[in-house]
Amino acid sequence: MAKKNAFYAQSGGVTAVINASACAVIETARKHKDKIGKVYAGRNGIIGALTEDLIDTGKDSAKAIAALRNTPSGAFGSCRFKLKGLEENKLQYERLIEVFKAHNIGYFFYNGGGDSADTCLKVSQISDKMGYPIQAIHIPKTVDNDLPITDCCPGFGSVAKYVAVSVREASFDVASMCKTSTKVFVVEVMGRHAGWIAAAGGLASDKGCELPIVILFPEIAFNKEKFLAQVDATVKKHGYCSVVVSEGVKGEDGKFLSDQGLRDAFGHAQLGGVAPVVANMVKDALGYKFHWAVADYLQRAARHIASKTDVEQAYALGKSAVELALKGENAIMPAIVRVSEKPYKWKIGVAQLKNVANVEKMMPRDFISKDGFGITEKCRTYLAPLIKGEDYPPYKDGLPQYVRLKNVAVPKKLGEFKI
Amino acid sequence: MAKKNAFYAQSGGVTAVINASACAVIETARKHKDKIGKVYAGRNGIIGALTEDLIDTGKDSAKAIAALRNTPSGAFGSCRFKLKGLEENKLQYERLIEVFKAHNIGYFFYNGGGDSADTCLKVSQISDKMGYPIQAIHIPKTVDNDLPITDCCPGFGSVAKYVAVSVREASFDVASMCKTSTKVFVVEVMGRHAGWIAAAGGLASDKGCELPIVILFPEIAFNKEKFLAQVDATVKKHGYCSVVVSEGVKGEDGKFLSDQGLRDAFGHAQLGGVAPVVANMVKDALGYKFHWAVADYLQRAARHIASKTDVEQAYALGKSAVELALKGENAIMPAIVRVSEKPYKWKIGVAQLKNVANVEKMMPRDFISKDGFGITEKCRTYLAPLIKGEDYPPYKDGLPQYVRLKNVAVPKKLGEFKI
Repeated sequence: MAKKNAFYAQSGGVTAVINASACAVIETARKHKDKIGKVYAGRNGIIGALTEDLIDTGKDSAKAIAALRNTPSGAFGSCRFKLKGLEENKLQYERLIEVFKAHNIGYFFYNGGGDSADTCLKVSQISDKMGYPIQAIHIPKTVDNDLPITDCCPGFGSVAKYVAVSVREASFDVASMCKTSTKVFVVEVMGRHAGWIAAAGGLASDKGCELPIVILFPEIAFNKEKFLAQVDATVKKHGYCSVVVSEGVKGEDGKFLSDQGLRDAFGHAQLGGVAPVVANMVKDALGYKFHWAVADYLQRAARHIASKTDVEQAYALGKSAVELALKGENAIMPAIVRVSEKPYKWKIGVAQLKNVANVEKMMPRDFISKDGFGITEKCRTYLAPLIKGEDYPPYKDGLPQYVRLKNVAVPKKLGEFKI
Repeated sequence: MAKKNAFYAQSGGVTAVINASACAVIETARKHKDKIGKVYAGRNGIIGALTEDLIDTGKDSAKAIAALRNTPSGAFGSCRFKLKGLEENKLQYERLIEVFKAHNIGYFFYNGGGDSADTCLKVSQISDKMGYPIQAIHIPKTVDNDLPITDCCPGFGSVAKYVAVSVREASFDVASMCKTSTKVFVVEVMGRHAGWIAAAGGLASDKGCELPIVILFPEIAFNKEKFLAQVDATVKKHGYCSVVVSEGVKGEDGKFLSDQGLRDAFGHAQLGGVAPVVANMVKDALGYKFHWAVADYLQRAARHIASKTDVEQAYALGKSAVELALKGENAIMPAIVRVSEKPYKWKIGVAQLKNVANVEKMMPRDFISKDGFGITEKCRTYLAPLIKGEDYPPYKDGLPQYVRLKNVAVPKKLGEFKI
């Protein structure tokens, strides 16, 4: 029984390009039918493996699988479900192996961020311990861009492009209105821990198109006086100002700025974003008319403005994951290696999962300008190639055509398992 | 002195395509140099005319003017400044004529919404009264789509496309996450008085791609119990739900839902959007995990995802405005006439300004489904062609290339005027 099946699952927050990696895994596996049998996907991520809720990707046509490359979100469903330590969650890890065994699965492809890299590593360890051979390969994905070793993370480049394009467009808008109306525009972007996405707002302004942008990074403790002074000076100089604020910005007390205790008329606590908090500060202290936006899921789902570089890298990593598995690799993650800056060239390298799991890559301090409100040339050099190129999905009647797979279930062979 | 100059100004909130109309006005005037001298633009809209702050568009190259077609925002600056009644604001109307006279301006092209249609009409009346001939032509523009007579308003189609695309993308995202995480996604869109933009969210779901979407229109008084029941039923049936909420939604008491008295920790009033209000209701009553977004300026500035139909109509209306002026027309507005539905065909007609000014076109009740939470087939038939076609701007290094004109000032001839 040399020919093993493969299992693929998506983990955590989905992106505009995670399905491009899925597309690559399935297409590449289909090219190696002599070595890889079926590709099963976990319905709703690793939960699908634990509950033996597997999807037979073989039931979908080549055309449908190819369309995954252009489709945002997670085609098989993702989940927020963290498997902890091997001892702590022993039953669950054993269950995974049991399910893999029952379905003759020898390849485990896990597409996610830091937590899933950790899970992936543990699956390879438990398989070793239990004597059932599993090659566990992690495929990086996270809009947060916080995985170590890999030069960047699929999903990030497209969010970065969305943010850069949107900030440029909104800045043009405010510039038109500022004489008699809005002078300050605040947009909130993702990034609870690291300011990579906020930094991308800085790309909106470049030599050919300078724009007055103030960025608030989670890496820089928020100082209200300095911030207001910066906005005021910017408006006085340029007539207007765009503010890009990371959802993860914290005050000097270490508390999230968004958790500033909004209450409704009855005194009930309300969950708000950080954009309205910052906008209200500007209004109260400076009196400028403002507008604010919160991009939220729109930014990470925006396949319509995906970065071509990002799509290509997401695909290449999925393809490489399968090829590495066929070479016998285990407990590794294919990673992006930046080969050269100008012109931008990249290739796929290999990272050991033990060096990836539980390590967060923060923005280097020298990527943030001295005053804490902008990006440096070094940061720009790093970010610029990641948003390069457009990769439009097909349209029909004005709307992007995204695929929905059949997601046919594989008949179960085991008893129920409660998670 | 038969050859007169033209004056062009942008008014109110800018859009992704108002510059396409500007492009058409200037390009068409340049083709008729025998009849139209210079095209002057008002810096920051009508304020530029009142303060004699005119821009000589002749100083910009054909290439720069052509690039306006792809550039969002208002290239000459817009303003929120309403000229009221002729008697009430007599000095200002007289000043306009004085400035036009000083600069030999015989054509007044005013690009805006309802208020500017009214101003445009009054300019033609005062010119008559004062014996200085001005042909006043209004060019429609408003994302709100609320002008009468014209089948649709330039700017709206592109916002509608942005909203339809974004809601489709975010719905795919939520569908992937709903098993263990977000089940309800709320996005707030523009439309203080009319629900046209919110309705466009309904286009995200169509026969080829059905999605569970609940729309909150300003035309339908908000009923909390009914809304929560609708969301709950939708989540129970589909696993998740997207909510598109118009900023203009009001409760049964007639008050804006967004004005529900948010206070900060110190009891200060905070300006919030309606999306967090609705999202918090869902959390409190149903306990579903949620995310929310506020598109704000991003939606109306999103030239990167503009509707081709919209761009073409914006251009055609600007071109037609000049051609109608050359035919001697006055106090009119070129308008979109829908010639046929399938295939969608349109042409330019002519509306009398007296029939346009101060009339708001609301969504017909039969465009909204009986339960008040969706759009009808009739509405879909109306909206669908308006988002058709893509019209991508040029890109360089991953960013759209938007033009900024020189905006060279015309030497002043008159004394100062305080507004």
